[in-house]
Amino acid sequence: MPLTEQPQPPTLADSVRLADDGMHLLDRRVFPFERRWVHARDLEQVAVAIEQMVTQSSGPYFAALWGMVLAARDAAGTGAEEFTARLRAAAERLIATRPTNDHQRLAVAWVLDAVDEARRSGHGTGAELAEAALAGARAGDADYRGRSRALGEAAAGLLPDGARVLTHCWGDLYLTETVAAAQRAGKRLSFFCTETRPYLQGARLTAETLAEMGVPTTLITDGMGAALFSSGQVDALVTASDRVSMDGHVINKVGTLQLATAAHAFGVPFHALCHGPDPASPTAADVPIEYRDGDEVLHALGHRTATERVGGLYPAFDVTPPRFVTTVVTDRGPFAPGELAAYPAAQEVE
Amino acid sequence: MPLTEQPQPPTLADSVRLADDGMHLLDRRVFPFERRWVHARDLEQVAVAIEQMVTQSSGPYFAALWGMVLAARDAAGTGAEEFTARLRAAAERLIATRPTNDHQRLAVAWVLDAVDEARRSGHGTGAELAEAALAGARAGDADYRGRSRALGEAAAGLLPDGARVLTHCWGDLYLTETVAAAQRAGKRLSFFCTETRPYLQGARLTAETLAEMGVPTTLITDGMGAALFSSGQVDALVTASDRVSMDGHVINKVGTLQLATAAHAFGVPFHALCHGPDPASPTAADVPIEYRDGDEVLHALGHRTATERVGGLYPAFDVTPPRFVTTVVTDRGPFAPGELAAYPAAQEVE
Repeated sequence: MPLTEQPQPPTLADSVRLADDGMHLLDRRVFPFERRWVHARDLEQVAVAIEQMVTQSSGPYFAALWGMVLAARDAAGTGAEEFTARLRAAAERLIATRPTNDHQRLAVAWVLDAVDEARRSGHGTGAELAEAALAGARAGDADYRGRSRALGEAAAGLLPDGARVLTHCWGDLYLTETVAAAQRAGKRLSFFCTETRPYLQGARLTAETLAEMGVPTTLITDGMGAALFSSGQVDALVTASDRVSMDGHVINKVGTLQLATAAHAFGVPFHALCHGPDPASPTAADVPIEYRDGDEVLHALGHRTATERVGGLYPAFDVTPPRFVTTVVTDRGPFAPGELAAYPAAQEVE
Repeated sequence: MPLTEQPQPPTLADSVRLADDGMHLLDRRVFPFERRWVHARDLEQVAVAIEQMVTQSSGPYFAALWGMVLAARDAAGTGAEEFTARLRAAAERLIATRPTNDHQRLAVAWVLDAVDEARRSGHGTGAELAEAALAGARAGDADYRGRSRALGEAAAGLLPDGARVLTHCWGDLYLTETVAAAQRAGKRLSFFCTETRPYLQGARLTAETLAEMGVPTTLITDGMGAALFSSGQVDALVTASDRVSMDGHVINKVGTLQLATAAHAFGVPFHALCHGPDPASPTAADVPIEYRDGDEVLHALGHRTATERVGGLYPAFDVTPPRFVTTVVTDRGPFAPGELAAYPAAQEVE
C-alpha cells in the first residue's frame, strides 16, 4: 500500500461527463486495471451503458441527467408537444434500465420538472426547452453533490478519531464525502473493504478510491466481516444504500444484510448512508429486487471460477430490516431507522 | 447443470492414495478444471504438499496417514529406537503443517500408537515396525471413513425430504456421507453452495462433487446467504467443522460465522458436522487461528482481482459461538452445542 503519495481527488467522483459529442463514462467494469472511457452518443447508448454496468452506484444518476440532455439536444428542432413527448419517453427508457435503484427516476425528474416549468413560463420552442433541460440537469448535479456532502458531514460525526470502518461494495460520493468530512475534521480513519463478488466493486473501486484519498485500507473477502466483528477489529459498519424505505429497511448490494446481522450479533453499529428515505417506498415490499445473470457468479473478471456443472444465482440486492440498522444517515442528519417519518420535516445539515 | 447423467462416486473421496512409489494427491487447487495428481515421494514432500494446499479438508488426514507410512518405509532398515525417533519427528513435521485443523494430529496418532503397541508386543526390527505402521494407517483410514458414514447418517436424519440446504466451503466426507445417507433413505435434497473465496472450494470442489452425486446445486457468492435465509429459500445451513471445542464453539472456514449469525437471525437451523468434539480444546481460546497469506484475497485462481494499491487479510478460519449453532452432528448422533460433555460416554451410531 503506497500511502506515502499525496492524497488526490477521487477519480470516480467525476467519471460521467457531458461533452459536445455526447457523454463519456469511465468504465467501472475494468477500473482501475484500465482507465477506459465509453462514449455514448445518444440516449439509447446511455441506457445500454447503464444496463451493461459500464457505470453503477451514483453513476447512473449522472448518466441519466446527461442522457436527458442528449435527448433534449436531439429534440431541440421540434415543438413543445413533440419535445415533451420525446423527453418523457427518454425518461421511461432510463428508469427501466435497472429496477432497484431509484437514482434514474430522481435524475430524470430534475429535467422533466425544469422543462415543465419552462413551458408554464411561456417558453415553447424545442431550443428553449433544451436550454431548460440542461439547466435542470445541472441543478440536479449540484443538488446531488451538495446532499452527498451534507450526509458525509453527518456520517463523519458518528465516527470517532481512529475509527476502523468496514464497508461493503462501493459507496461512491456517500463514502468519499464521509471520508472527506472526517479528513476536514482531522479524524484519521482506516478501512476494511469487502471485495464484493461478483463484480469486485470493493476490490477495485472502493480500495482504489480510498488509496487515492490516502486512507489505510485492507481488503477482505465477502465472508470475513463477522470474523473481524467478533474479534473486536471493527468499530463501525458503514455502507451506502440504493434505497431506504420509510419504515427503515435498507436496500443495498447483496451481502449488506449478512454483514448487518453479523455486526448486530457482536454489537458493532451499522450506519447506512442515503440522501433521504424514499417517500415512494413506505416499506421494503414496495421495492423490486433485481436479479442479474447468474452466470456472473461463475466468473471473476471474465475468468471461469466454478465447475462447468453448476449454475449460479445473483440477487443483486438484499433488504436489511430496521432491527439490524443502527442509523440511517441522511443529508438532514442521522436518524434511527424507526424515526424516518421525521425526515421530511427536518432541516438540511449546513 | 447436466443432471441427467447417472450419479457417480465422488472423485474427491479417493483423492489421496498410497502407492509403491510414494503418495499421489489430486491437486485440489486446480480441480475440477484440471485433474492433475501431485506425486510426493517422501515425508517432506507430503508436508510441503499439505502446506501448499495441494489437498485440504480431510485430505491432510489421509496424507498424514500415508506420509507416516512413507517415513516408516524409509526407516525400515533401522532398529526400534531409531525407527521410533524418526516416526516421532515425522509426526511433528506433519502436525506443524497447518495449525488450526487437528486432522494431522489424529492421523499420526494412529500410526504412532500402532508402532508403540508392536514394540510392547516384542516386535523390534524396523521392518516389523514398518508393517505395524502400515496396519495402523489402514486402521486410521477405516476409522475415519466409518465415523464419517455414521455422522452422515445422523445428519441426514435432521434433514426432511426436499430440504434445501446451504453449505459453505467443502465438507468433504462429512458432506458426501450426509448426501449419500439421505439418498439411501430416499430423500431428495437440493443445495446452495457458497463459492468460498479466496480458494473457491465451494465453486470447484463442492459444486463439482454434488453434481457427481446427482444433487441439484446452485452457486452463490459468500455474501448472499442471508438474502436466501431472509426470503425463505433455505431450510438448513450445514457445514463441516475443522474443530469443535467441548463447550460448543465451531471452528471452520472463515465465512461460517457470518452465515451462522445470519441463519440465526432468520430462524434457519445451523447443523455443524464433526466426528466428535475435541477433548484437547475445552474452549475456543484453545484453538489457534491460522492466518494465511493476505495476497490470496487479491487474486482469483492466479488472476489479480484487486487494485495494486491495497493489501489483503486472510484469517483462514473463524469461530462460531454456541449461541449461533443449532446442532453439532457427530458419529454418535446429534448434540446441542451446550451438551457435548455427554459425547465421550455416548454410543456410536450404527
